[in-house]
Amino acid sequence: MRAAVLHAPRDIRLEVRDDPAIVEPTDAVIRLSAACICGSDLWPYRGISAIRKPTPMGHEYAGIVEEVGEAVTAIKPGQFVVGSFFASDNTCAPCRDGYQTSCVNRQGLGGTQSEYARVPLADGTLVATPEVPPADLIPSFLAASDVLGTGWFGAVAAGAGAGKTVVVVGDGAVGLLAVMAARLLGSERIIAMSRHETRQRLAREFGATDIVEERGDDGVAMVEELTDGIGADSAVEAVGTQEAMMQAIRATRPGGHVGFVGVPHGVEIPGAELFSSHVHLHGGPAPVRRFLPQLIDLIWNREIDPGRVFDLTLPFAQVAEGYAAMDERRAVKVLLTV
Amino acid sequence: MRAAVLHAPRDIRLEVRDDPAIVEPTDAVIRLSAACICGSDLWPYRGISAIRKPTPMGHEYAGIVEEVGEAVTAIKPGQFVVGSFFASDNTCAPCRDGYQTSCVNRQGLGGTQSEYARVPLADGTLVATPEVPPADLIPSFLAASDVLGTGWFGAVAAGAGAGKTVVVVGDGAVGLLAVMAARLLGSERIIAMSRHETRQRLAREFGATDIVEERGDDGVAMVEELTDGIGADSAVEAVGTQEAMMQAIRATRPGGHVGFVGVPHGVEIPGAELFSSHVHLHGGPAPVRRFLPQLIDLIWNREIDPGRVFDLTLPFAQVAEGYAAMDERRAVKVLLTV
Repeated sequence: MRAAVLHAPRDIRLEVRDDPAIVEPTDAVIRLSAACICGSDLWPYRGISAIRKPTPMGHEYAGIVEEVGEAVTAIKPGQFVVGSFFASDNTCAPCRDGYQTSCVNRQGLGGTQSEYARVPLADGTLVATPEVPPADLIPSFLAASDVLGTGWFGAVAAGAGAGKTVVVVGDGAVGLLAVMAARLLGSERIIAMSRHETRQRLAREFGATDIVEERGDDGVAMVEELTDGIGADSAVEAVGTQEAMMQAIRATRPGGHVGFVGVPHGVEIPGAELFSSHVHLHGGPAPVRRFLPQLIDLIWNREIDPGRVFDLTLPFAQVAEGYAAMDERRAVKVLLTV
Repeated sequence: MRAAVLHAPRDIRLEVRDDPAIVEPTDAVIRLSAACICGSDLWPYRGISAIRKPTPMGHEYAGIVEEVGEAVTAIKPGQFVVGSFFASDNTCAPCRDGYQTSCVNRQGLGGTQSEYARVPLADGTLVATPEVPPADLIPSFLAASDVLGTGWFGAVAAGAGAGKTVVVVGDGAVGLLAVMAARLLGSERIIAMSRHETRQRLAREFGATDIVEERGDDGVAMVEELTDGIGADSAVEAVGTQEAMMQAIRATRPGGHVGFVGVPHGVEIPGAELFSSHVHLHGGPAPVRRFLPQLIDLIWNREIDPGRVFDLTLPFAQVAEGYAAMDERRAVKVLLTV
């Protein structure tokens, strides 16, 4: 099969690799209906996360089940399924608590910028759609496997809900879909922090009521101005930098909630400032599995269209151009036809 | 009046200072029924927090109202009142949310190791008991003004409640009273981390079901062993050091809650570890005022006896011995008769 492999910073290649096969009896092998590039793939692409050896890229996936191991009972060949970047048994204590990304048997899942993928713990990890969906829904299901589920968790962790004012820091796909989630969860006012016109437009389409272009302390001051000087009830941090984290904490009112879903890179939270801020802080690798049944319903019934975050579709052979377009912020998120 | 003044590390003196007077029409002046020394007073006493000039010490208080300003309506001379270390208007948005220590008009209150104290924003800050209490209840009311209210907030912030397993890091008065709070809130299992026999005994009397003597990663391993390898539902951090904060985070299960009430000194929370821990983190200067009516009821009705944290009572003239006893961990908490 063909798969995207990162060899060095900005050196991403399409290569032929062995097709995956069932290894454990709990595995499934799926044929991807499309692939995509995630904002977090840019950390190694830019060389910020080290690459020690050629690394198959991608962790988002949706597609048709080809084959299952003999212990798999809930998932069947021919089904269209969506899963998340961590395989989980969905039965242990953290899974039952809704933290499947902290499953005691969790297994990282990579290399899904490819034609086929092996998914461990298939019964716990995969959720099937009612039927094989029409082609136009595939981008939305692919979004559900990470960026929608992550934005959704960010909004939930931030306590977004009826009557709330929610700030979203980060205008990548996760941030934009956190806007969508905050809207679906009933938030009254949604402030998107973005200085990119196309992303601002998408944020407004997804439900943002206000746009703040300023960053850092200036951005915090703007949020304060919009919230009677007190700060927002909720903030979603969807970047992973020190500046974004502090912006989210400082934009939130005492007793408010910060949901952080940007993978932290060099972030150190000063204890004394967090103490005096009185905010609640919660985040982590999004337990997408917790939300998948609900998200699949919403997409299947065409109540949400998260696939709109894909603003560039390329044939698989142009994967390198896809990375470059996201790196240069020419595209919000790239869909690859495989 | 006489007041305790810190001149330099370990140089605490009893001095004669002017009696406080009404300055603002919203002030009250109270005569303290007793004074006490807080664990947090040890930071400047030990020279860890800098002392730039002679500093009147103390921020806990309970006593009889002597005089009120002309704008004070709810509080009357002759009442016995309890307040907290931040004066608050109890009407602004953060106050209405129960975060009176983030009141937009908050004023720090110090120098209450003294015979009299001026309390700003008296109507918002002070809570009166039904009648002047008998002398044996005074230590408990004094405890309510900070250490009980702070331990209580820590337990609430940690999500202590029915069926929960709660770890308490820190065996000072706040930690011990967090044990009491966790018990009152209905927690099933309360693990006190302490290596001091007298404090262990008090923790057990207050409701601890288990004692862990190990610290750091060994302590975390012991908590894991006691909780099926998953970690506690809740942890209260009542120290303020890096080690205690990380111990609390690491002892908590994915999706669990850490309530931190130790004033952070040099604490930096690594973003990546907090991310992967999946814990909820909430803390800050305890909004004691939120809990005071409930705590006063519990004490008045003799349902709790938080005054038991005072294990050494000294005449005011021996304030220096009181500090030394707490510094050397010969006493949990010192009551000063003024």
